[in-house]
Amino acid sequence: MSRRTAPPPHGRLLKAPENFLPADFRLDVTKDGLNDERRGFLRKSFASAAAAMAAGAGITGAARAQSATSAGEDAILKLPPHSKGLGQPVAARPYGLPSQHEQNLQRRESPGLTRVSASSVSFCPLQGLFGIITPSGLHFERHHQGWWDIDPSQHRLMVMGLVKRPMVFTMDELMRLPSVSRMHFIECGANSGMEWGNVAVPTVQYTHGMLSCCEYTGVRLSTLLDMAGFDRKQGKYILAEGADGAGLTRTINIENALDDVLVAWGMNGEMLRPENGYPLRLVVPGVQGVSWVKYLRRIEVGDQPWDTREEALHYVDLMPDGVHRQYSSIQECKSVITTPSGGQVLLDRGFYNVSGLAWSGRGKIRRVDVSFDGGNNWRTARLETPVLDKCLTRFNIDWVWDGKPAILQSRAIDSTGYVQPQMRQLRAVRGTRSIYHNNAIQSWRVAETGEVFNVQVS
Amino acid sequence: MSRRTAPPPHGRLLKAPENFLPADFRLDVTKDGLNDERRGFLRKSFASAAAAMAAGAGITGAARAQSATSAGEDAILKLPPHSKGLGQPVAARPYGLPSQHEQNLQRRESPGLTRVSASSVSFCPLQGLFGIITPSGLHFERHHQGWWDIDPSQHRLMVMGLVKRPMVFTMDELMRLPSVSRMHFIECGANSGMEWGNVAVPTVQYTHGMLSCCEYTGVRLSTLLDMAGFDRKQGKYILAEGADGAGLTRTINIENALDDVLVAWGMNGEMLRPENGYPLRLVVPGVQGVSWVKYLRRIEVGDQPWDTREEALHYVDLMPDGVHRQYSSIQECKSVITTPSGGQVLLDRGFYNVSGLAWSGRGKIRRVDVSFDGGNNWRTARLETPVLDKCLTRFNIDWVWDGKPAILQSRAIDSTGYVQPQMRQLRAVRGTRSIYHNNAIQSWRVAETGEVFNVQVS
Repeated sequence: MSRRTAPPPHGRLLKAPENFLPADFRLDVTKDGLNDERRGFLRKSFASAAAAMAAGAGITGAARAQSATSAGEDAILKLPPHSKGLGQPVAARPYGLPSQHEQNLQRRESPGLTRVSASSVSFCPLQGLFGIITPSGLHFERHHQGWWDIDPSQHRLMVMGLVKRPMVFTMDELMRLPSVSRMHFIECGANSGMEWGNVAVPTVQYTHGMLSCCEYTGVRLSTLLDMAGFDRKQGKYILAEGADGAGLTRTINIENALDDVLVAWGMNGEMLRPENGYPLRLVVPGVQGVSWVKYLRRIEVGDQPWDTREEALHYVDLMPDGVHRQYSSIQECKSVITTPSGGQVLLDRGFYNVSGLAWSGRGKIRRVDVSFDGGNNWRTARLETPVLDKCLTRFNIDWVWDGKPAILQSRAIDSTGYVQPQMRQLRAVRGTRSIYHNNAIQSWRVAETGEVFNVQVS
Repeated sequence: MSRRTAPPPHGRLLKAPENFLPADFRLDVTKDGLNDERRGFLRKSFASAAAAMAAGAGITGAARAQSATSAGEDAILKLPPHSKGLGQPVAARPYGLPSQHEQNLQRRESPGLTRVSASSVSFCPLQGLFGIITPSGLHFERHHQGWWDIDPSQHRLMVMGLVKRPMVFTMDELMRLPSVSRMHFIECGANSGMEWGNVAVPTVQYTHGMLSCCEYTGVRLSTLLDMAGFDRKQGKYILAEGADGAGLTRTINIENALDDVLVAWGMNGEMLRPENGYPLRLVVPGVQGVSWVKYLRRIEVGDQPWDTREEALHYVDLMPDGVHRQYSSIQECKSVITTPSGGQVLLDRGFYNVSGLAWSGRGKIRRVDVSFDGGNNWRTARLETPVLDKCLTRFNIDWVWDGKPAILQSRAIDSTGYVQPQMRQLRAVRGTRSIYHNNAIQSWRVAETGEVFNVQVS
């Protein structure tokens, strides 16, 4: 595995290969002050404590623990510097950052995916994230001609086309309008696209990392269309256009536009990040990311689809008979186990919390089932709340690993009753050249060594 | 107003005083290419368009708009550099940051509040935030002896006291246990404390900024207590202790501990930030922030409260008769309008989206009412979803400012039926020296100039 493959952060399931993580992530014998003899003693304590614990709490093989009367007091009483000294003052960092011990958790470009990095993808490190909110600094990126930090005082949004009153808004004007806040996932239509052709990308960062989830704040597009007096009889589509060099344009049905589409400036409590379209982007819940036009500068109302470059030449699904599916915009129900996932290594046998994400562009997640034997038997996972419309849902399930090979899968069911398909079911209908809209069940194989691999199960 | 008073970011309601904001935030005539004559023309277009708009959309005096056939085309067709060139590549910033135009939105220390900045507070800039999620980089800080970036591989948590099996956990061991993710607010017990004594702090950052809201991930404290086999008959309280120099200790009722208390490592999708207790903190939903012990290293089960320094000498409420309320931990139902708020300036008359936050340590927010005349008349605000237990709730309400002085207030009602009190109601019971647990209605006075001030309404 190349060093470019993103390792998970400290403390997750893994035992890091020696050459894989920076020194900060490795347990240093000289640091914890334990020699090998002492370690041997502790290991025995762990084993007996774990057995007692399992009996008491009903969690078989759960976390090992030491006797508090031996190593515990030892660890507590030898006070480290941070327990004795004066730390950093408040506002030492007026805008805070992650711990220096978490620097390995980054968004990463897939090398060679595109010829120019300004028209490429950086993937979100799902293997190291918790809950449903994606930290804005780790949100995946997909640029068509690079990103800019646009001066908001200069930015304008025009609403035109089949409207009575064409309008141009400044940011100040937009932000005075009635606003709403909503949590939604955003997924690139090409997420997991390599799997169509049986390319088993090693980690969940690269298989599913064109996925993020944020709380967005903005004005409903329907409010702007109402203000401009759009033609309700003729106006069947809108065109959204970005202000960056790509001049990205996408057609959106008027039904969507009037439903839950937002013209958003806020993301996770603050203004959008430059990489995500600062100061203004379209939020099109449930629809593939390319339609969430960044640096939004123009909304045009029309009476037919525009068939722009990014909907005629790209973002079309090539079917087995050579025909393209066009405007196949909705991200269907999908899920993936993020921990454990490809590239991680199980520490040892015993209890694990298996965790993952589920989502659907058509509504809420109703249920997630997990299999540990490649799809023969399924158990229902716990869903964390809130479970929201067109939003990521976090699931967790208990698992005791017996040290034998296992194949882990998750299968989501959404509020419409749609069940996430197997890869072979999708291929039977759509062939192997679609690139876009792969929502198949993902399989992770756990080897006897504890190593986890991306595999395709026939 | 001092320069230390945090101004809101670009694009909010304000017209920035000339000496208040960096150059980036001011409209520059040479930048937008409009001379004064042209500006005059546009102003007239705005006025007529706004009238038409108001008639069409039912939003009186809403955002001004220009005619698309004049200034609109002008603005769109003169392409700025970002519409022509190649931007920054993906992963140019493997961990992203806010726009350079938002640098003014910071957490800020209140000068002189404490003698040492390592034992002080930095306030969250609520006036510039949206929705309910607080960006981790802007989370308020309260340290008792400064913050540290602790090496997680060296950190341990001990569970001891009235338990059958005292245990010590590594981070790896904790993170294998069944985990949950929950969104909760955290508020310092002293938030809005200056208002008890009628000190009208100028901005909402300084009145209410010891408040944040995140998605936390961790293991339930009850899981750990079960594993350790705690004494259900004798064990009535737990003690939580931090590993930093302050050695902060707080007593928590066993009822809370077994209910929704978490031992958390995750915050807003990633590991806790060092300023917020990395790698482990207690999350005690609904209870004042001091009990959310950071750098958590020890949980002890006992049969009576510990009466530690931070619960005997501090974090007690001094009543009019000289008696202290002790263990008054719950943060009662409260709300505040964040936009417009003290220090902001309304651009002009007309339509505004008035926005704020509501929360209760006892449950969910049922309703928020807003008054624009100092409490004589009330209208019910829109609540954004999700509305969650012991979590911030965002509210919005339409307002047309007629240019006359106004006093804005919000009043929250929680799921227990409790109604947020007026300041005089609180003072009648608790006097003026409590410091802690002020949950009174906040009043903002809008002057004819559009300036907004913190005032106390009798």
